[in-house]
Amino acid sequence: MASLLTLHDDRLFSVDEAVRQIARRIYAETRDLPIISPHGHVPPAWLSENLSFDNPTRLLLTPDHYINRILHANGVELSQLGVPVTRTDMTEADNRAAWRIFCEHWSDFNGTAMRYWLTDQLVGVFGVTQRPSAENADEIYDIIQAWIDDESHRPRALMDQFNIEFIATTDDPCDDLHEHDKLAADAEFAAKHRVAPTFRPDKYLVPGKEGWNDLADRLGEVSGIDVSTLAGFTEALENRRAYFKAHGAVSTDHGIQDLDAAYLDTQEAERLYAKARAGQLTTAEADALHHHLIMDQVRMATEDGLTITLHPGSLRDHDRATFAKYGADVGCDIPHAIEVTRATREMLNAFGNHPNLNLVLFTLDEDVYSREIAPLAGFYRSVYIGVPWWFVDAPESIMRFKEAVTEMAGFSRISGMIDDTRAFCSIPARHDMMRRMDAAHLANLVALYRLDEDEAIEQARKLVVDNPKKVFKL
Amino acid sequence: MASLLTLHDDRLFSVDEAVRQIARRIYAETRDLPIISPHGHVPPAWLSENLSFDNPTRLLLTPDHYINRILHANGVELSQLGVPVTRTDMTEADNRAAWRIFCEHWSDFNGTAMRYWLTDQLVGVFGVTQRPSAENADEIYDIIQAWIDDESHRPRALMDQFNIEFIATTDDPCDDLHEHDKLAADAEFAAKHRVAPTFRPDKYLVPGKEGWNDLADRLGEVSGIDVSTLAGFTEALENRRAYFKAHGAVSTDHGIQDLDAAYLDTQEAERLYAKARAGQLTTAEADALHHHLIMDQVRMATEDGLTITLHPGSLRDHDRATFAKYGADVGCDIPHAIEVTRATREMLNAFGNHPNLNLVLFTLDEDVYSREIAPLAGFYRSVYIGVPWWFVDAPESIMRFKEAVTEMAGFSRISGMIDDTRAFCSIPARHDMMRRMDAAHLANLVALYRLDEDEAIEQARKLVVDNPKKVFKL
Amino acid sequence: MASLLTLHDDRLFSVDEAVRQIARRIYAETRDLPIISPHGHVPPAWLSENLSFDNPTRLLLTPDHYINRILHANGVELSQLGVPVTRTDMTEADNRAAWRIFCEHWSDFNGTAMRYWLTDQLVGVFGVTQRPSAENADEIYDIIQAWIDDESHRPRALMDQFNIEFIATTDDPCDDLHEHDKLAADAEFAAKHRVAPTFRPDKYLVPGKEGWNDLADRLGEVSGIDVSTLAGFTEALENRRAYFKAHGAVSTDHGIQDLDAAYLDTQEAERLYAKARAGQLTTAEADALHHHLIMDQVRMATEDGLTITLHPGSLRDHDRATFAKYGADVGCDIPHAIEVTRATREMLNAFGNHPNLNLVLFTLDEDVYSREIAPLAGFYRSVYIGVPWWFVDAPESIMRFKEAVTEMAGFSRISGMIDDTRAFCSIPARHDMMRRMDAAHLANLVALYRLDEDEAIEQARKLVVDNPKKVFKL
Repeated sequence: MASLLTLHDDRLFSVDEAVRQIARRIYAETRDLPIISPHGHVPPAWLSENLSFDNPTRLLLTPDHYINRILHANGVELSQLGVPVTRTDMTEADNRAAWRIFCEHWSDFNGTAMRYWLTDQLVGVFGVTQRPSAENADEIYDIIQAWIDDESHRPRALMDQFNIEFIATTDDPCDDLHEHDKLAADAEFAAKHRVAPTFRPDKYLVPGKEGWNDLADRLGEVSGIDVSTLAGFTEALENRRAYFKAHGAVSTDHGIQDLDAAYLDTQEAERLYAKARAGQLTTAEADALHHHLIMDQVRMATEDGLTITLHPGSLRDHDRATFAKYGADVGCDIPHAIEVTRATREMLNAFGNHPNLNLVLFTLDEDVYSREIAPLAGFYRSVYIGVPWWFVDAPESIMRFKEAVTEMAGFSRISGMIDDTRAFCSIPARHDMMRRMDAAHLANLVALYRLDEDEAIEQARKLVVDNPKKVFKL
Repeated sequence: MASLLTLHDDRLFSVDEAVRQIARRIYAETRDLPIISPHGHVPPAWLSENLSFDNPTRLLLTPDHYINRILHANGVELSQLGVPVTRTDMTEADNRAAWRIFCEHWSDFNGTAMRYWLTDQLVGVFGVTQRPSAENADEIYDIIQAWIDDESHRPRALMDQFNIEFIATTDDPCDDLHEHDKLAADAEFAAKHRVAPTFRPDKYLVPGKEGWNDLADRLGEVSGIDVSTLAGFTEALENRRAYFKAHGAVSTDHGIQDLDAAYLDTQEAERLYAKARAGQLTTAEADALHHHLIMDQVRMATEDGLTITLHPGSLRDHDRATFAKYGADVGCDIPHAIEVTRATREMLNAFGNHPNLNLVLFTLDEDVYSREIAPLAGFYRSVYIGVPWWFVDAPESIMRFKEAVTEMAGFSRISGMIDDTRAFCSIPARHDMMRRMDAAHLANLVALYRLDEDEAIEQARKLVVDNPKKVFKL
Repeated sequence: MASLLTLHDDRLFSVDEAVRQIARRIYAETRDLPIISPHGHVPPAWLSENLSFDNPTRLLLTPDHYINRILHANGVELSQLGVPVTRTDMTEADNRAAWRIFCEHWSDFNGTAMRYWLTDQLVGVFGVTQRPSAENADEIYDIIQAWIDDESHRPRALMDQFNIEFIATTDDPCDDLHEHDKLAADAEFAAKHRVAPTFRPDKYLVPGKEGWNDLADRLGEVSGIDVSTLAGFTEALENRRAYFKAHGAVSTDHGIQDLDAAYLDTQEAERLYAKARAGQLTTAEADALHHHLIMDQVRMATEDGLTITLHPGSLRDHDRATFAKYGADVGCDIPHAIEVTRATREMLNAFGNHPNLNLVLFTLDEDVYSREIAPLAGFYRSVYIGVPWWFVDAPESIMRFKEAVTEMAGFSRISGMIDDTRAFCSIPARHDMMRRMDAAHLANLVALYRLDEDEAIEQARKLVVDNPKKVFKL
């Protein structure tokens, strides 16, 4: 007889009964608030085309590197899970086999964030009632498949059911955003849901890297601006930012190795740009020009008002063999230490108190929460503390974050929840987790007589509503 | 109707009722013990002149960069708060306006250490009973103003009311310490309270920095010693340390960028000193001479027995524009990572077990508590672990500190409470916070059966009385 | 009247009564499981010769640098404690005096891991019932001495009483392992207990360091292989690894400064080896050859299947004067920051998913748990997360470890308990501590509805039994 899989209504609240009761009361005030998701990776076509999720493996396993990596570590080949997502050769038998492998490894997820989100989805979204195992893998597969096949579970309908008011996608600067146009043109849908693009120019800002020259050319074509000089390249970027803004974008997002940014003088910058176009940059010059371009993105943000989010600190594709075989984003990006205080000094001295700039600093290096990011956000008006993402977006990690930044910077300097996910059906679970952690943290403050309960409730609502609206100018 | 502002007698104790009861019993044994404050920034003239605190804004807001910075981040101009403290043009209307701004922003302090200390002072010291808001800002201003205007609330009387037995100020090496002399000459006051100067030579120990040459000259004048050689400069520093010691000093304090320290050979040191005096030092030479001078302060400490406290790890005046407009100490000093193990090796190999040396290592970088400072203090006889100061001097930060250092080094290697503050009326709140955290931490150990309650009580008393007396040789 | 010294059966479980009850039930399932100790420093001769522990000081104080260092910091000379262990001149009076010093300093251990283990041993093993103090020092000495003198408390009998199923020692590559042979030859003992050697080649892998040439010569002699080339030296190392494996070894252990490892090309490696043998290596060359040799140990592990454990991050013999006087391992090794993500990239790209490799990464730098080690172990099949050792092997440190790594990597990637100790009588206390912390941590997950109790119980058993058996291939 299989064990039951259940969702307890008090999950994640304090173990102490008195604190738990306070947490319940705080959470009751935020649990049903609409979801605002200002940064994530849901493909816009899912929504504009209202695509079916296909099958359980393709929905839950193949694209989710959080899950794949743990299975890989425990001996599973990524190919067995359907990776990479671009594959079209997975049969139903393959998908069922992948699902069975996952169910067999269920206990390998004990204690992880993935286990938490999966349980929330399995029980709360798909209606599964048994703990996954080799024995019931097919039965659970069938339940989820039936759910997927129900027309009422297409992405647009789920936007209602999941109560998602705002969601941002992540897009290439040269994208024409026609998916977004299509969504905006659907008056009924658009009246209740806003789907905004996000300008993510990473690849365009690393001169000297393979393929960069072609990207620069493409930027020129799409914008209709001559990019033979840095002045032109800059104008082309501004042009595309304006295009994104006109199509509803509220932010630009930047995955970077570190936070270094500094302007070159104009002449030197043009000289390096010319060398970059000629394929002659040294590594040091490439870094210098990259740091110049990052700095200039911040300057543009002060002008067009798009919020800027910075995500440093991940060494992408750590395992070269896996990258060669499966491509990027398959589970072998590994965090590393970052430095914030010195790296951001030029950037923040130039723009850190600019009235039109909102800059969100994310990190995978927990050390910098209390030491660097919270102190910076507690002084500079433009700086907001990014909530935990990726490896650190789990309950105890989130509590460490809250305990690290709140005492120094208060709640007003926090970005609000960012789910950063491409796993559409996990969005409610992720936002709910954060609301539960908000309640758990605030309940502790109340129980320790550091905050009154009415203040805690007001604060919880602000974290869910006011903070993201302010930081992303919604 | 405004909400009440209250102080709960169990604040900061564990949320668990059983642990809370243990914490109460431990705290009952330390709450009324006199305050020993071996490091802080209260201006000695406040005490020697027994000055009035003037008005609520000047008392609580203008000089407090902890508070100003959060308001600044939330859009307030520092000038609106009366910054810098040297200004004399703030009218009562200006001060009331500043106070109203602060009250409007009360919720921006939710969850912070500042909120905790402010509540403690507002309720416990000034008798405020309402939660600050735009509506009651003037009323609260009036209550505090009336408290200030009461002659019984001048600093000297408060030394009694606050039960401060020992307090150290922070002073320039060339100061003649006449304020301290005046206090020591008041037999009635001096019988109950000791106000000691602290030798803080930071600016004198950075050759090559703007203004250093003039400071060296001034040191020569005040000491009456020829400082044209490093030997003379060294003697002059020793002379001033002796002067401070004769006037009651128990320690020297050093705000430094990092912990590097190493002797140059005598000839090389003299050569660099000569170059420094001639304004010809390179950056590398300036660093080398600085590290030599820091090393030599430790050597002097082994000879005159003054305890030495080291505070590395803050990048001062991160925002150059704010510094240019408002000067130093206005809220934009930002912590950064430090290294302790290798940096202190020469210093500790030379002096770390010297019977006459007490050296307290503070940090703003929480990472080094368990990794470096506690291990060092658990071996070297001269090394003591500085309690959390500045950004990390809040309840959860303090608990992290306790949990990070105690298991490795025990309680005997901890400096005892340091409030490091210029906010005179917050001193009782800060020391009380630490005593509550001592009780909370020790109660946990008792509840986990790691310590008996009588041991916990004895340990709590030691942390408040014995540790600071031992470390600062009182 | 002396205070009682007691062991509470609920020690280390949560302070919350509800969680404590869950923890009790989990712990009940693991407390009596046999001890598997795959890495430690018990001298094999103790077991093969079945030596008496001599006296309380020699058993508990002299060889234990955890304890000695705290006493040293508090003013005790190491020589008063009988250090170094090679001394033969300690009289009974000296040993009693040492013991009295320790008892006088009992409260200096408040809150430490040492206090926890000592209490567990004093009460649970030796039958002491009073809290140590100057007054009862001799009485307690007598109790322990009587326990030692009881023939039933010789090491082999204790292996039964302590329920130790597997224990690994740490041995020199040139050791002939006759002690292990002797133990294996005792059929009755060997039927119930396995004592395995561990190959620890640290000194052999640092070309250029004083004494290295002689060690290389010795390796040649013992293996009977010509080590005049690196090819020969490599073959000699492989030969000794094979010898160890044939004598029961399951792992090789490596105390290293950092995790850097990279192959040189064969010709360059031979060139540097020749220079090393000629005593002509530069520092950079020595590092390069060292990193080559470390890399090659990993390669050998993929071939002979011995698990490899890496312990970086301790600056050995920080205080040169103490080292000169007392030698190594006497309490002045100090941790420092390490980098894992970049340092291990070459090693893991070459071997990180090899089916025959198990590689355990230990750290003294808590920062890398969640940032680097757990993410790496959550992807690479060969990488396991080493449990806390040395400075961080205390209850709250262990909980920080669990909370840092579990959410990212789950439980399946953890090495299982490693006691790393030479304090034989503390082994049960250490393993019991970890089982209690396992229970405490899992009970929290259950109480927060993140795991069902039956899952927690199964997981607890796996941590004690399955994980070490898998990681060390037992």
